[in-house]
Formats: sequence, C-alpha cells, structure tokens
Amino acid sequence: MLTSRHEKYLRELFPGEGSLFTPEEKLIFGTDASRLSRQPWAVVRPESREQIVELLRWAEAEKMPLFTRGRATNVVGGAVPDKGGVVVSMLRMNRIKEISAEDFVAVVEPGVINGDLQKELKKRRLFYPPDPASAAFSTIGGNVAMGAGGMRAVKYGVTRDYVLGVEAVLPGGRVMRLGGRCHKNVAGLDLARLFVGSEGSLGVMTELTLKLLPLPEATASLLAGFGTLDAALDAARAVFGCGTLPTAMEFMAGLVLEAIAGEGEAPWPQGTQAALLLRIDGSESTVAEDLRRLEAVFKRHDPTCLLTGRGQEEEPLWELRRLINPASFRIAPDKISDDVTVPRGKVGEAVKRFQALGRERNLKMLLFGHLGDGNLHVNIMHDASNPDELARARQTKEDVLRVTIELGGTLSGEHGVGLTKLPYLHWQIGEAERALMRDVKKAFDPSGILNPGKGY
Amino acid sequence: MLTSRHEKYLRELFPGEGSLFTPEEKLIFGTDASRLSRQPWAVVRPESREQIVELLRWAEAEKMPLFTRGRATNVVGGAVPDKGGVVVSMLRMNRIKEISAEDFVAVVEPGVINGDLQKELKKRRLFYPPDPASAAFSTIGGNVAMGAGGMRAVKYGVTRDYVLGVEAVLPGGRVMRLGGRCHKNVAGLDLARLFVGSEGSLGVMTELTLKLLPLPEATASLLAGFGTLDAALDAARAVFGCGTLPTAMEFMAGLVLEAIAGEGEAPWPQGTQAALLLRIDGSESTVAEDLRRLEAVFKRHDPTCLLTGRGQEEEPLWELRRLINPASFRIAPDKISDDVTVPRGKVGEAVKRFQALGRERNLKMLLFGHLGDGNLHVNIMHDASNPDELARARQTKEDVLRVTIELGGTLSGEHGVGLTKLPYLHWQIGEAERALMRDVKKAFDPSGILNPGKGY
Ligand SMILES: Cc1cc2nc3c(=O)[nH]c(=O)nc-3n(C[C@H](O)[C@H](O)[C@H](O)COP(=O)(O)OP(=O)(O)OC[C@H]3O[C@@H](n4cnc5c(N)ncnc54)[C@H](O)[C@@H]3O)c2cc1C
Ligand SMILES: Cc1cc2nc3c(=O)[nH]c(=O)nc-3n(C[C@H](O)[C@H](O)[C@H](O)COP(=O)(O)OP(=O)(O)OC[C@H]3O[C@@H](n4cnc5c(N)ncnc54)[C@H](O)[C@@H]3O)c2cc1C
Repeated sequence: MLTSRHEKYLRELFPGEGSLFTPEEKLIFGTDASRLSRQPWAVVRPESREQIVELLRWAEAEKMPLFTRGRATNVVGGAVPDKGGVVVSMLRMNRIKEISAEDFVAVVEPGVINGDLQKELKKRRLFYPPDPASAAFSTIGGNVAMGAGGMRAVKYGVTRDYVLGVEAVLPGGRVMRLGGRCHKNVAGLDLARLFVGSEGSLGVMTELTLKLLPLPEATASLLAGFGTLDAALDAARAVFGCGTLPTAMEFMAGLVLEAIAGEGEAPWPQGTQAALLLRIDGSESTVAEDLRRLEAVFKRHDPTCLLTGRGQEEEPLWELRRLINPASFRIAPDKISDDVTVPRGKVGEAVKRFQALGRERNLKMLLFGHLGDGNLHVNIMHDASNPDELARARQTKEDVLRVTIELGGTLSGEHGVGLTKLPYLHWQIGEAERALMRDVKKAFDPSGILNPGKGY
Repeated sequence: MLTSRHEKYLRELFPGEGSLFTPEEKLIFGTDASRLSRQPWAVVRPESREQIVELLRWAEAEKMPLFTRGRATNVVGGAVPDKGGVVVSMLRMNRIKEISAEDFVAVVEPGVINGDLQKELKKRRLFYPPDPASAAFSTIGGNVAMGAGGMRAVKYGVTRDYVLGVEAVLPGGRVMRLGGRCHKNVAGLDLARLFVGSEGSLGVMTELTLKLLPLPEATASLLAGFGTLDAALDAARAVFGCGTLPTAMEFMAGLVLEAIAGEGEAPWPQGTQAALLLRIDGSESTVAEDLRRLEAVFKRHDPTCLLTGRGQEEEPLWELRRLINPASFRIAPDKISDDVTVPRGKVGEAVKRFQALGRERNLKMLLFGHLGDGNLHVNIMHDASNPDELARARQTKEDVLRVTIELGGTLSGEHGVGLTKLPYLHWQIGEAERALMRDVKKAFDPSGILNPGKGY
C-alpha cells in the first residue's frame, strides 16, 4: 500500500506531472497490449538517471514493487502492475544521445521509439536491423527487455545480437555499466546481454549502446503462392539451399490467404494453400542477381502465382501481410494469439498439427509467421461471448503450446512470457533451471521488488 | 590437497587411463597457450555426462577446485590449475551428436574440434561461421567458454551469436538444460548465453546446440596496400559505406608488412605503410559483382597494390597473413601479445598511439588485426633475456591496455581474461559490476570451486 508519506516522497522526487496518483491519470498505466489490467498505486515519469537512482534506493528500503514500462505494447502482460506498486514510465527518457557513423554504434535512452531511431539512422545510411512489427510505437528499452524479434531475423538475428552495452539501475540505487561500445568484448561475464529478454526483472535500464551496420543499398521482395503446404515448405527449403540468404521469409497458410482475399484483391488464385513472402537486400546489382535466382528457384516449385518488386514496388506485397490483422476479424470477433516457435524443420508438422487441433474443436485457426526462424503466429479465432467457444479456444491454446513443446519448440520466439505464459513455463523449462534463474535474479534484485511474480 | 581417499574415489569413477596422477602424465595438463604452468593434483578424462554429474557432486561436497579444459589453446591462462585441484579434460567427449540440415542446428559434445565440425558441415553445405585462427585445434567447448571470435565476425558475428542451447553440470551435480534448438527463444532468463565467455567459471558444459546457416556458395578476397595508414583507414571507411558488407576485413600495418616481405615475396612495393585484406561471400554471381565494386572503391584510394582472387586463388593472399607469426620472430625472439579492441572509429588513433609507445620505449611493435570489429593484435617484440628490455616490454603492455581503455575499448575482444588480464580488469570494469558478476557466479557455484581465482 502507498502511505501518505510515500506519496509525499514521490511528489517531491517527481514534481508536477512527473508523478500521478488519481485513478483517471493512472488508468492507462495499469494495462498493456495483453489487455490485462490492474491499477498501480502510483505512476512516476523520470527524466534522468539520478531520479531513478534515488527511486530505487527508496524502493529497496521500502520493499516497494516497481513496474518499469515503455510503450506497453507487449502482448503478455509484462508491463501490468499485477501486485500493485509504482509504475515507472520511461517515455520521458527518450533522447538519442549519439549516433556514431565511425564506431557503428548508437547510444540511446530506453524511451526512444525504435522507428524514430531507424529514421535518424537512415539519414546517415546506417542500419539497426531489429524491426518488430511494432517498431513505429515500441521503445528500444521495451525491445531489449522483451528480446524483440522481427522480420529481418533470418539474415540479421534479433535484438539480442545488437545490444553492446547496458546501463541499468538496480534496487538500492546501484548503477551498473555493463558491456561497452566495442563490437567485440569478452571481458567479464556478459551481464549486458542477460538484460535482453529479462522482462524488467533485473533492473531499470537507463541507457543502451547498440551495434549498427551499414544500410544495405537496395532491397527486393518476392511473393509466391503454392497449391499445397508441402510445396511451399519444399520451396522454402530450396531457398535455404540456393546460396542466397534472404533477409526475411514470411509464411501464410490456408485460411489466412482466404481472409486477406476477402479484404480486396489478392494476387493468388483460388486453391492456393500457402504463400511465401521474401525480402532480400544488398547492393543494387547483387539484389538484381539474387532476385533472378530466387525467381528461378520458385519457378521450379510450381507456384500458383509469383510476384516480385524492387524499392517502392515492394510495398503492395507487404501490404497484403499487414491485412492479416484487420482481415482476421471477418472470421470471428475474438482471437487468442501465440508466437510459438519450433525448430525450423518442424514448421510443416507444427502447421498440420495446429490445423488439426482447430478442426477437432471446430475453431478457425489463422497460421502465419516468420518461417525462416520457425516462429509461427497462431491465431485461434472465436467468439468470446459464447462461453463454450471461449472454453474450446482456451483448450486449443493449451494444446498448441503442448504440441510446440513436443516438437522441441519454445513457448515464445519473441513476445515473451509475462503473465500470460507463466502458467505454462514449466512445460518447457525444468524446475532446477527456473530456480537457477531466480537465484540469478537475487544477485540483481535481492528483495524481489522488480516486476514481482513474473518472468520465470 | 588430494588425500588417498580422494585418489581412490577418482580412480573408481574414472578407471584406467580415465584418471592420471603421476607428474609425467599430468605435466601437459598444467599449462595452456599462455605458457603459465601449475601442476594439478589429478587429471580426469570423463566420457559421459553421468561421470561429470558424479564428479561435481563429490567436488562440491569436498570443496575440491576443478579446472575444466578443452585443447588448452587459450592464451590467457584460462585453463591453468592455478590453485591446485583436479583438471577435467573434455577431449574424450567429442561426438558430433547431430547435424540437422532441416533445423539448421548442430548438437555437439564440448570436446569436438571446431575444424572437424566445419568439415562435416561443409559436406552438407551448412555453415558454422565462428572461425578462430585456432579452429583446426581448439574445441567448441573452449570456443564457447572463451567467447571466441574470428575473421568472419564483421558479417557474421562471433561464437556468442551461434549458441542456442547449453547443457551444463553445476557443482553439486545439478544438470541444467538451458536454451534450446530454436533459432529464436525468449522464454526465461538467457542463461545459455551467459555461459559464452564465462571461462569455465559457471559449470562444466556437456552439450552445445549451435545455430547453422546455409554455406555461402562462393567467396572472393582482395588485398590492397596503401602509402599511409590514413589512406588505408579511409579506404576501410569507404568499404563500409559502399553497400557491400565484407565477411572479413583484416588489417596489417608498418613493420608487419616489412616482416612478411622478409619471409619471401610480398606483393606490396616499398613504402607501403598499411594493407587491407578482405573476404566477401555470397552466390557466384553476387560475389563477382561485389568484387568489382570493392575493386573500384579501393582504386579510388590510391592503392600501392591491389590483388584479388576467387576460390583457390584466395589462398596465397591469406597465406601472407599467416606468415605474420613466423615472420615476427625475425624481429625479436620474444613477444607479448594482446588482443585489445577499440570502437571501430578509433582504430587509427589506437594504431598511432601504440606505434608511439613502441618508439618511446625503443621497442618494435607489430600491429595487425580484425579492423572490421576494432580488434587489434598488438605484438610487443623484445628479447626476454635482456632484463631491461623485458621490463620495457611489460611497461609497454600496460600502456597499451591503458590507452585502449582511454579510447573506450576493451582489454579483450576475443582472447579472454584468464589469469593474465585479471590484474587489469578493474581498469575497465567497476568494482560494483565485478561484485555483481561474482554474485551471479554464486548462483551457479556457491562454494567457488570452478576455475577459482579467475575471470572477474
Ligand atoms: C501490433 C503489435 C505488433 C507487434 N509485433 C512484434 C514483433 O514483430 N516482434 C516482437 O518481438 N514483438 C512484437 N510486439 C510486441 C511488443 O511490441 C514488443 O514486446 C516490444 O518490445 C515492447 O516494447 P514496449 O516499449 O511497448 O515495452 P513495454 O510493453 O512497455 O514493456 C515490456 C517489458 O519491458 C520492460 N521494460 C520496458 N522498459 C524497460 C526499461 N527501461 N528497463 C527495464 N525494463 C523495461 C517492462 O517491465 C516489461 O516487462 C508487437 C506488439 C503489437 C501491439
Ligand atoms: C595459434 C592460435 C590462434 C588463436 N586464434 C584465435 C582467434 O582467432 N580467435 C580467438 O577468439 N581465439 C584464438 N585463440 C585462442 C584460443 O584458441 C581460444 O580461446 C579457444 O576458444 C580455446 O579453446 P580450447 O579448446 O583450447 O579451450 P581451453 O584453452 O582448453 O579452455 C579455455 C577456457 O574454456 C574453459 N572450458 C573449456 N571447455 C569447457 C567446458 N566443456 N565447460 C566449461 N568450460 C570449459 C576452460 O576452463 C578455460 O577457461 C588462438 C590460440 C592460438 C594458440
């Protein structure tokens, strides 16, 4: 509970609109894209590391639960102040402190929006590959804390692969400067990267140093439809064997294609059961070469349609994928989404088993995702106002998770665990391993005040 | 100390040649490529995880120091049993358990030699990018424990970026299965990657799951000489701006070029002050394109020589680089080597300051390295039989480390800390951060029996 003494303290440390206490003001700080919600006792909006140091000193002394948040776009309840406590919004710490075209690093405060950084980098012909679909409205701090993935993971990896340095404040107000600004660094335990995917459980990150690459000169995209799922998977295998590694390899199956077609004109003919959407990048001339090569690969796999585009022409192809979300609501008013991931070679089996689960329970399943890294987005469509259907949808979700684990997969490829996957985490990670994670957390957060009750 | 009860126990657990106790047998297990040496009390050579579980149960109960080792090629004393104790040689656990061309993963025991894995992968047109110069004789377990780098880091990153899963046995015999075989996975704290660069301090790794890529179809190499260091650095900058990311970008300066020339025919004319050696990869046609592009870039920077090669023709170019080591001993009988790393844009300044340090102390300095990631190999040449010269060389080493830290660099880009860099680690990493690392270690190794007195 927040005493009046606590409130007074917070008002002094975060004057004016820096701290919020009324239900109206706090409302949106109690929820995130999971749509779970719980009112915090207070919200603070730090503008400097110094305030955070003082806050964490106090919070440790008072055993006050803290819930750090960025833009609250995580879909698993990671930013929900589940136990009551103080929400720490990082959005006012949103300075891009430095972009170095010489060192190929960017130094940013955690509240910087991924897309804003991308824009600044582009002007300088630099490139930060991690590109979650939420890039336009999620923070770098949130991306790091969730270990965000994105389309470009096939060629470039994920957020984890681009974090060089982390400054974080730990309970008690201890400031830790971990890692650095070198692209290679093996001095000491790699605690900087331990923050990646730690979901706000280890400390409040106050500065991030990110690895940059030169911006590829050109890109191109290909969309190919196939008459069967297996034909699409064969084509994907052939791509991986052809000597050109795509930047992105997206995949859409069955009902997803019908749903998109329902939104307007889709390029694939009736009977198309699966589609692949690829992006490649490189120099102008190599992209032209690679595009020819991939077209030839696809042509050998009997595509029902094959479209290519370069530069601006790519957009209509990717627009089709962006239609999945609006189109899905033509199928049913509600959905349960999961971002399970299986070893790449198991995607075909996973898709077939997920489709079968839908048929068994008479539910429509939308299946699409990042084929290149085995990350499937499974949307279980249903009408939540029908209790029986809702129950079946929930059972199906559990079955999807179970099948994923059976196939050697993981409950989350990029969306994280938060509150919503925590009940299932023991299916994947043993009790000994989770106990070890909790012991490691104790070194950072001995009293368990950071995002308590979540994560692992 | 090893009691006769201890010895009896070890002989039973590791029968026959599985355990060694005589000074002759133990001799080589007391040293590594650092040339530091300390005799262990015993050496054991496990063949199975079960033996290791039992060993770690016993070691924890007896508070027995354990020193895990692979091929002992680390150059920092990381495998030296500094405190006395039992050496655990992993070389008998050298099975490649699985190579999956479908999942793009390899599952190996830690004693597998990197080069042996590469060979098996190549047959299947698969690719494990980390390629330390010691690939032919260092183990995957050692590579992971040291966070080994290599030439291909510019485009592909380092060992850290390819470890998906780690099975390790902790003191007390606790078996931990961390990470998995998915290319993307954000469930729980990322303890698998914490093992990367942990230098044998967290557990004995018994199985590693590695991420693979498709083998690039073709490669090509370029060697260019320049009249000044600055011209070479300008050319390097132009390469990073040209839209083609090289796989490797190596660099040799000043005396290194003279020394190589002394070994036979070198392609660069007198007066060449710096050289760049690049490799690119991709499909046959894109490599041809990129090669033309990079040639054009170099031609705009007044090279003193420019050689290119594709496939087999690349070898003579790389052979020149491999001459550095033998050639160095024409300059002086002894050397102190360091693999300091600076932010990429600071390479020029670092080289100039290191050269100045050599001049001040009248010592010859060989400077070369992985320019693409700021990793400089600094060899301070001297005659160790001359006490004054040895003292100057040692002072120069300290100065090199100090300048590196001043430039925002790290004491080690890939070789690790071990015993030899430990005295300087506090120059780079604060006391609070190191205390945090030691607290984290306690969660794994509460009694501090694993590689005691090293690392951080
Ligand atoms: C439409 C949509 C599309 C999406 N697409 C993708 C996608 O393609 N790939 C993907 O990976 N995710 C995706 N997501 C999920 C989400 O955008 C990511 O998880 C994102 O990284 C969250 O960032 P955020 O700023 O919203 O963080 P929040 O949701 O505010 O917080 C997320 C977690 O980070 C912690 N945190 C935030 N800032 C800090 C800090 N400074 N210090 C310590 N901890 C901190 C919080 O405690 C919380 O646990 C999508 C979400 C939506 C709504
Ligand atoms: C000629 C030469 C060239 C080199 N080139 C490079 C280079 O280009 N890049 C580079 O990064 N390094 C290089 N090195 C250094 C060295 O090869 C690497 O550090 C290598 O990774 C060490 O592997 P190893 O099998 O020899 O391990 P060892 O030296 O035997 O052990 C290294 C560390 O790993 C730990 N360890 C080993 N196995 C395990 C296990 N199963 N579980 C837990 N801990 C374990 C040990 O405790 C020790 O701390 C070079 C060395 C030489 C001699």
